[in-house]
Amino acid sequence: MVILEGRSRVAPWASSRAQRRLVELESLLAGQDAAEVVRTVTRALGEHRRAFDEEGIVLYAGTNTMSPRALAVHEATVSSRPSMGWPGEKFQAGLEHLDVLETVAPLRMASLMEGRFAEVRLQSATLANLACYTAFARPGDTIAVLPEAAGGHASHHAQGAAGIRGLRVADLPYDADRFTIDHARLPGFLDRERPAIVVIGASLMLFPHDVAAVRAACDEVAATLIYDASHVAGLIAGRRFQRPLADGAHILTMSTYKSFGGPPGAAIVTREEALAERVSAAAYPGLTANYDAARLAPLAVTAAELAETGPAYADACMANARALASALQAAGFSVAAADLGWTVSHHVAVDAGAFGGGDEAARALAAGGVYLSGIGLPGQPPGEPMRGLRIGTQEITRRGLAPGHMETVAELMARLLIKGEDPARVLPAATALRGSVTGPR
Amino acid sequence: MVILEGRSRVAPWASSRAQRRLVELESLLAGQDAAEVVRTVTRALGEHRRAFDEEGIVLYAGTNTMSPRALAVHEATVSSRPSMGWPGEKFQAGLEHLDVLETVAPLRMASLMEGRFAEVRLQSATLANLACYTAFARPGDTIAVLPEAAGGHASHHAQGAAGIRGLRVADLPYDADRFTIDHARLPGFLDRERPAIVVIGASLMLFPHDVAAVRAACDEVAATLIYDASHVAGLIAGRRFQRPLADGAHILTMSTYKSFGGPPGAAIVTREEALAERVSAAAYPGLTANYDAARLAPLAVTAAELAETGPAYADACMANARALASALQAAGFSVAAADLGWTVSHHVAVDAGAFGGGDEAARALAAGGVYLSGIGLPGQPPGEPMRGLRIGTQEITRRGLAPGHMETVAELMARLLIKGEDPARVLPAATALRGSVTGPR
Repeated sequence: MVILEGRSRVAPWASSRAQRRLVELESLLAGQDAAEVVRTVTRALGEHRRAFDEEGIVLYAGTNTMSPRALAVHEATVSSRPSMGWPGEKFQAGLEHLDVLETVAPLRMASLMEGRFAEVRLQSATLANLACYTAFARPGDTIAVLPEAAGGHASHHAQGAAGIRGLRVADLPYDADRFTIDHARLPGFLDRERPAIVVIGASLMLFPHDVAAVRAACDEVAATLIYDASHVAGLIAGRRFQRPLADGAHILTMSTYKSFGGPPGAAIVTREEALAERVSAAAYPGLTANYDAARLAPLAVTAAELAETGPAYADACMANARALASALQAAGFSVAAADLGWTVSHHVAVDAGAFGGGDEAARALAAGGVYLSGIGLPGQPPGEPMRGLRIGTQEITRRGLAPGHMETVAELMARLLIKGEDPARVLPAATALRGSVTGPR
Repeated sequence: MVILEGRSRVAPWASSRAQRRLVELESLLAGQDAAEVVRTVTRALGEHRRAFDEEGIVLYAGTNTMSPRALAVHEATVSSRPSMGWPGEKFQAGLEHLDVLETVAPLRMASLMEGRFAEVRLQSATLANLACYTAFARPGDTIAVLPEAAGGHASHHAQGAAGIRGLRVADLPYDADRFTIDHARLPGFLDRERPAIVVIGASLMLFPHDVAAVRAACDEVAATLIYDASHVAGLIAGRRFQRPLADGAHILTMSTYKSFGGPPGAAIVTREEALAERVSAAAYPGLTANYDAARLAPLAVTAAELAETGPAYADACMANARALASALQAAGFSVAAADLGWTVSHHVAVDAGAFGGGDEAARALAAGGVYLSGIGLPGQPPGEPMRGLRIGTQEITRRGLAPGHMETVAELMARLLIKGEDPARVLPAATALRGSVTGPR
């Protein structure tokens, strides 16, 4: 009976750790009327805002803050106005003003990312990848993707969007020591597996891919090459890191809110009209009826801003990453890929094996006001929990932190993880560092 | 050469009508810098807001306006904070404040819709349906759905989410004269087609389905019964129209922003834990990595409000629909299902054959400040363009229009369509009617 009473009402199938937290909240929230619900969620939002937007050092790689001009053109009520079909032939009448957003956003995104066509209606990069799987593969086909331990995203794998489409997934050969695809083994692998699609780009991108070499190998087996730029889109927009479409990727998919720094959502960019047309049909009416048109105004503004400021922003993100990697190493951390120079992107990875793994280390840091996540490291044994800590410098860069601040960031992390200080004593230092800058402007 | 120069850069594969509009906008938008893009999108948003939120009579069935309390808890920056996994075991550290939203929203939605479990992370009902197709069918399986001319949604059909999953789609037998499923032919049909899933619920819902009868027929062939309540969820929340889960549907999917009147997005509700667990895995990590947690606060508030005000709101929507149908008939329109009493929901359908079909009629109405869309009518010949006009009373009800106003609404429509008055002369009357009410409060 005690066990039954302790089951979560929200997700009784979740792990016992999750159910403990859910049951705790469920009992707090029971029996609230509408006014109490308003107070409860308002309080939660306020505490979240304080922690993440006002006081915390956010090093999480999958987030960012929008520019003031982009945020100012986010009009929430537009989200509830379905706009289905192209300007000039929409299912709904009277939405001509939204036509402007639906034209300027894809135009800006296509040129910024060095493509000719941009599909901008999908709400996430997971759905962007699923649209491409639909456009270029049939259920039962094989796709080849980066292994999960090398940052291959869930949406590339069978538990994610690839499984929704009913695809068979094969892991690309990977050289864990060099943090890159094993190019020597690639042609033989592709010849054996005959994938319809090859997906490169990962959730941890310390170094660029050799896109031209992968494309050449794809051409031998007529595979469509997708570069998932979800994490590095902000660098690519600034013409830094690498140029996936110029170097031969058929398709670039991306998140618009990570290093790119726009609203949540996705874009799919290509140079080839025939591919763009198939992607378009998979996006609408395949994966959307309504889509959230409110995203398009901040997306267009972000793209227009990055066309002007993107190179300097990308340089600043990368300089912060190099400085932070160096400072972390000096503070006693084991920074991944040290023999390769740590990173040439905005990402840094730390081996957290000494701190109980990435997950436990991330929780210890969060208690002290430093927010990030764990990540698998390519070299870790199969089955071992995520061994790494993943850092992205995009948000702290926008807030205004510069290479000169990175020693302080590394020191905060060292106090929390290496020295094991009480997080309550470290938190004020994190808050003070965050308070010393006032971006984005 | 002239033809080539006239091709749209955004979508050169679109219809010539769409390309004309796109090319017009593309030339206007060429060469703008970031400051000009900000001005352009700000102006478009302002004009859209004036037309739809401030001055127009919005009768479009697939939209609504949120309550002031729900709108006030929409915090846009939360959308860029990925929150993956259950409270207590998230991939990201430090998001404990969002745990509150992730608990209160599903609890409130489940009980409001008479279920036990609610999956609330998906961004649209199209994706909610796709999650169910993934949970309960495999590529190549058959699903049985309402014909498109009977309001079967694109996401039920092969060009939409059903095609993404690689499903075979069969149209349920339908009685166009009675605007309902042909129950006499249903058992034989199911025995022949052996669908894994049966989807009922449509984009035009004048009358309820006999859910218990359909469920009994589904049980004979072990099909999972999904009721897509996207349009009628606001009525069901008020315990009006019908009770799909109480009457036997395995699963209820729904939009959260149409008659429900919450933020954009979806919910999937069920009474059965085993089904909920499968849906949950299809939602995450199947169809989402990040999802938009900013939706959850307004969703929880909307659900809590509807638990208190839902019955009165549903009654008011339905009373407006009956009054409007009657007024339209009196004004000379051919209102669909006249012999059945027009409607018992918040929807009304008008036969627009005399006005060039639903699409052309909707455009004529929009020019006079009355916004809605065309819809197919069950009795129309296959291949004929959408013959109907579809009306939903949910937004005008929230704005404050009552049955006593419906004669004026019908008169606006008659002036624009039957009398063929200049829209510029009708527009002020529409604006005046909208200006006479100040909801939602």
